[in-house]
Amino acid sequence: MNVEVLTIGTELLLGYTVDTNAAELGRALAAAGAEIVRRTTVADRPEPIRASVAEALNRTGFVITTGGLGPTRDDMTKTVVAELFGRRLVLDERLLASIQARFDRMGRPMPAVNRTQAEVPEGAVILSNPRGTAPGLWVEDARGVVVLLPGVPREMRGLLVDEVLPRIVTRQGSARRVVRSRTLRTTGVSESALAERVGPIEPEIAPLTLAYLPSVDGVDLRVTAWGLEPTDAEARLGVVVERLKAAVGEHTYGEDDADLAAVLLEALRRQRHRLGVAESCTGGMIGERITNVPGASDTFIGGVVAYADVIKTAALKVPLETLEAYGAVSEETVRAMAEGAQRLFSADCTIAVTGIAGPGGGTPEKPVGTVWLAARVHTSTRALRRVLPGDRDDVRRRAAQAGLDLLRRLLAET
Amino acid sequence: MNVEVLTIGTELLLGYTVDTNAAELGRALAAAGAEIVRRTTVADRPEPIRASVAEALNRTGFVITTGGLGPTRDDMTKTVVAELFGRRLVLDERLLASIQARFDRMGRPMPAVNRTQAEVPEGAVILSNPRGTAPGLWVEDARGVVVLLPGVPREMRGLLVDEVLPRIVTRQGSARRVVRSRTLRTTGVSESALAERVGPIEPEIAPLTLAYLPSVDGVDLRVTAWGLEPTDAEARLGVVVERLKAAVGEHTYGEDDADLAAVLLEALRRQRHRLGVAESCTGGMIGERITNVPGASDTFIGGVVAYADVIKTAALKVPLETLEAYGAVSEETVRAMAEGAQRLFSADCTIAVTGIAGPGGGTPEKPVGTVWLAARVHTSTRALRRVLPGDRDDVRRRAAQAGLDLLRRLLAET
Repeated sequence: MNVEVLTIGTELLLGYTVDTNAAELGRALAAAGAEIVRRTTVADRPEPIRASVAEALNRTGFVITTGGLGPTRDDMTKTVVAELFGRRLVLDERLLASIQARFDRMGRPMPAVNRTQAEVPEGAVILSNPRGTAPGLWVEDARGVVVLLPGVPREMRGLLVDEVLPRIVTRQGSARRVVRSRTLRTTGVSESALAERVGPIEPEIAPLTLAYLPSVDGVDLRVTAWGLEPTDAEARLGVVVERLKAAVGEHTYGEDDADLAAVLLEALRRQRHRLGVAESCTGGMIGERITNVPGASDTFIGGVVAYADVIKTAALKVPLETLEAYGAVSEETVRAMAEGAQRLFSADCTIAVTGIAGPGGGTPEKPVGTVWLAARVHTSTRALRRVLPGDRDDVRRRAAQAGLDLLRRLLAET
Repeated sequence: MNVEVLTIGTELLLGYTVDTNAAELGRALAAAGAEIVRRTTVADRPEPIRASVAEALNRTGFVITTGGLGPTRDDMTKTVVAELFGRRLVLDERLLASIQARFDRMGRPMPAVNRTQAEVPEGAVILSNPRGTAPGLWVEDARGVVVLLPGVPREMRGLLVDEVLPRIVTRQGSARRVVRSRTLRTTGVSESALAERVGPIEPEIAPLTLAYLPSVDGVDLRVTAWGLEPTDAEARLGVVVERLKAAVGEHTYGEDDADLAAVLLEALRRQRHRLGVAESCTGGMIGERITNVPGASDTFIGGVVAYADVIKTAALKVPLETLEAYGAVSEETVRAMAEGAQRLFSADCTIAVTGIAGPGGGTPEKPVGTVWLAARVHTSTRALRRVLPGDRDDVRRRAAQAGLDLLRRLLAET
């Protein structure tokens, strides 16, 4: 089935707000078997709203709007759609009671203006919104359907998942065709090296498609099934992803939204290892990534941000002679940092990183982007040199990811 | 003048790509005096492209498209627009030579398919694109203008700024009216406390508007001048922003894209102070924020991520009795952390943070979100307790910002 999306808001047109709802609706509707054929954004003004809803209804027969459902004068989507369907706005007593109850729970009086949020186009289906005061609305007649959702992303998402998608799935019945994707996350391997591994199985992937998606975190491999019946799509995706996993081998650390720091912590936890880190150019980013995972405290002991060389010697006990002979960005220094952190934190495992993030500080022998990484498990250290591309932020993010990955790989082998 | 924007791409509709070009075009065009009245997104298919360009040309007379200018079969915007204007596609020899030269510089042979990128609708103005192979195109007749830009954000931005905006400004002549904004950044103060300070001067702000924009970093105050002549807009913004600054006082740390870590480093540098940090719940985030600023190494010595209590005692010398008597999240502990970091790093100034980021670990006396912060300058320490709202990531980001801000405020007073 075809759907049009209309996002309403002057702030969206002016670019003060990036329209993340639009992308979210696209992904969710495609997965539920509805294809968005056009997306339109207009200002909070009755004329463009009326014109664009009427056109979309005419053209496609199914329109989802976001925004313009708040209690203020700017919020006029509901009024315009009611007019378009020739319906009166009527006060829904149950809705009024639930909005009133919401304010009671917050211990605040309900402003008079919120009463208008309990008015709905006669005959509309009210989609309950426990996350806010504006309900969603489903208005339908022989011409088609207009679904009104609030613009606040959290509320929009809740209503979409709980109320709209199930109705869309039901509506399509057995004719439903979906777009489904699964993503294999890889890091520490180039796109072309991946392509060499994946090449031999590419013929088996069709009619599904494979996309290589590089970012500072690595290369994601996204497999997509287009326009298939849902069970068929899932089954084919399952087969292809297993084949891909086998081909990609040790380079993959997870699927979909997998986070490398969480994957690493889980591996450490399984082996009852405790972790400490020593960071220079990443400045705390590895510690930040690790502690972003809830429950990190059972595994992560702590870190040292040894930005100035004096801290490399004082806190991490890197010998002054090592720094003087080889420099702060060297295999010898990063190994000494990994050992120093292990002693300081009495840790089983450590990660150490030192490098030149730029924009200044590069030399012909050690250009900007040069990073030395080390991972240590008990008495065994692995060190690795990388020259990472991009600006300061890119180099730091790539270095943090590479540090986490080095320990992940070392643990997998031991 | 009114403009419509058409972004072309199946990936945009499916939500695999967030349409950042759309927001960027909105901001840039508003600042140049053009108002986007409608934005449309359609798939890479000739029919919807033709229909939506024709409608927009009819309705508004000025259309900017992004996407569909690449060399592959998917890329059909140019062909469709040429047909719509009744123009043939003709090979532009100079353009072909410049595309050829681009491949020569990369030391790669030009694929035959790229030759099509040198074909342009007869009579179109070629907008030179030094960042890629697809040029922009400006096609115009009595019905109006269609400007074709590539979808790659870097190339789109370059063409917009270098080629499109100057033509739009010229076109409007003396009738040009712009939308301009300036933003005052505040942190460590609530929206309602700001409103109390700003209330008395609100009557002086009109006809400009004031928006309160809260985020985890604090509350931004955005002043906007709508539809004024550019010099007039700038002058009025200047007056209002100065009045706001006076009203907001010590709560503001900068304007527009100002970053608190950069502002703090600059203040430390002016006073020739060197900084060390001690972090618990933020896990390295403060160090990461500080070292994200190029040139931080002249001021920032290093940090300790004292996640486990044993590191608070071992590395920061927080007395075990303090931890046992008051707990890890307490004024006594955070003060001892700030002092310990000062000794460890031989620093003039330190920031220390300890707290409960959640989701677990809260108690009735110390609920999730409880954070103790300390800033120390020489022998003087200021400590502050906050209960921060939001999820784990929010609490950590708010705590990092609050730590940086506490030292900023202390330095401003000394």
